[in-house]
Amino acid sequence: MSAYAVLTAVSNQPGILFGLSKVLSDRQANITHVDIMSHVDRRERGNQADSGPDADIYLEFSCEQPLDVILDDLRQVPGVRGAEATPSFSKIYGKRIIIMGGGAQVGQVALGAISEADRHNIRGERISVDTIPLVGEESLASAVLAVVRLPRVRLLVLAGSIMGGAIAKAVEEVRLKGLIVISLNMAGSVPDVADLVVSDPVQAGVMAVMAIADTAKFDIVRQQKRRY
Amino acid sequence: MSAYAVLTAVSNQPGILFGLSKVLSDRQANITHVDIMSHVDRRERGNQADSGPDADIYLEFSCEQPLDVILDDLRQVPGVRGAEATPSFSKIYGKRIIIMGGGAQVGQVALGAISEADRHNIRGERISVDTIPLVGEESLASAVLAVVRLPRVRLLVLAGSIMGGAIAKAVEEVRLKGLIVISLNMAGSVPDVADLVVSDPVQAGVMAVMAIADTAKFDIVRQQKRRY
Repeated sequence: MSAYAVLTAVSNQPGILFGLSKVLSDRQANITHVDIMSHVDRRERGNQADSGPDADIYLEFSCEQPLDVILDDLRQVPGVRGAEATPSFSKIYGKRIIIMGGGAQVGQVALGAISEADRHNIRGERISVDTIPLVGEESLASAVLAVVRLPRVRLLVLAGSIMGGAIAKAVEEVRLKGLIVISLNMAGSVPDVADLVVSDPVQAGVMAVMAIADTAKFDIVRQQKRRY
Repeated sequence: MSAYAVLTAVSNQPGILFGLSKVLSDRQANITHVDIMSHVDRRERGNQADSGPDADIYLEFSCEQPLDVILDDLRQVPGVRGAEATPSFSKIYGKRIIIMGGGAQVGQVALGAISEADRHNIRGERISVDTIPLVGEESLASAVLAVVRLPRVRLLVLAGSIMGGAIAKAVEEVRLKGLIVISLNMAGSVPDVADLVVSDPVQAGVMAVMAIADTAKFDIVRQQKRRY
């Protein structure tokens, strides 16, 4: 099976995704990623004449059949204005680390992670470092649970001074789904349920990248439940 | 029209998205976001018994009809094991800023942006700061062009010491699509084509957040082509 990425330009009307996915289903293709980008909000601020498509739909899929045949089929779907092959997101943006918590600590973890990701990306890796500064038990617990719904996320770092309760429950739940969780050494029960606890935020960021980089020799599983 | 977010647990087989989007098309729903999360990779590392669904498909859509009726329909699709209402990503993760370039500068811009986002998120905003440390004209140009295909991205900061050529062309293209671009003051032609040029990377990060926060009074359009 070959993996393909296709960008289609479409009109903003119900049924477009149904039409596109029907083509791919008929061709026995397995869709692995979809993104819908509406241009309506952006166009209000853009300086381009209002004549382009209303939205782009980006699709990644694997399929036995040649891409040309599928592209021709996709172009016949009502509301589709164009369909072209494009480089895939996973090649461009790669694996993701998410850092969440208080701004002061999230910034320091990000600093370590970004410097370390730079070193690996130079050697051919593709690691992105994403952050969300967030306070409050409920907000953080919801954001932790939602991480496993985000594409390409491999590891979560919780960076704060006190986290527990609903956040610790959320950590246990996402770890059962296979997500790796690193916690700063802090008050509350989150450090007790994380895979790894690190006191220095910059080092936590560096270790996070090492844990998911194929170019690094660092096995997080061998570090289970250790504290630094 | 009401906006809904739904999480479905599905088997990993072709035709599932076709089945789900057929239900939504039949109900005149307009799909605004889709994410497909395969559990196959994660399960290898997870410690859960292998009995869960193969993948989750997350859908956001707007529709006139009540959600209960749509959920019932979705559950009837072959290969779908469950469908539940869930909080939407835009409420949890909100708007995104992307910072790209060399690790040293990306880290400093992120530091400024994360601290400033923290202040706005405390007041009810939801701003995420995402980064990718990346070198090379071609890699950077591809990543810049792909930014407009990522969901919820409002602003791009280019942080480096020299950027031009294909990167500058890519910046012009994404600005035509309405994306705001801030450049550090650097060698090469990228500063000439950006919306705003800032010398201090921490300040660049702070300004990036101010430019997209509804809680800030900073109009990037009034700053067009200024240099700090």
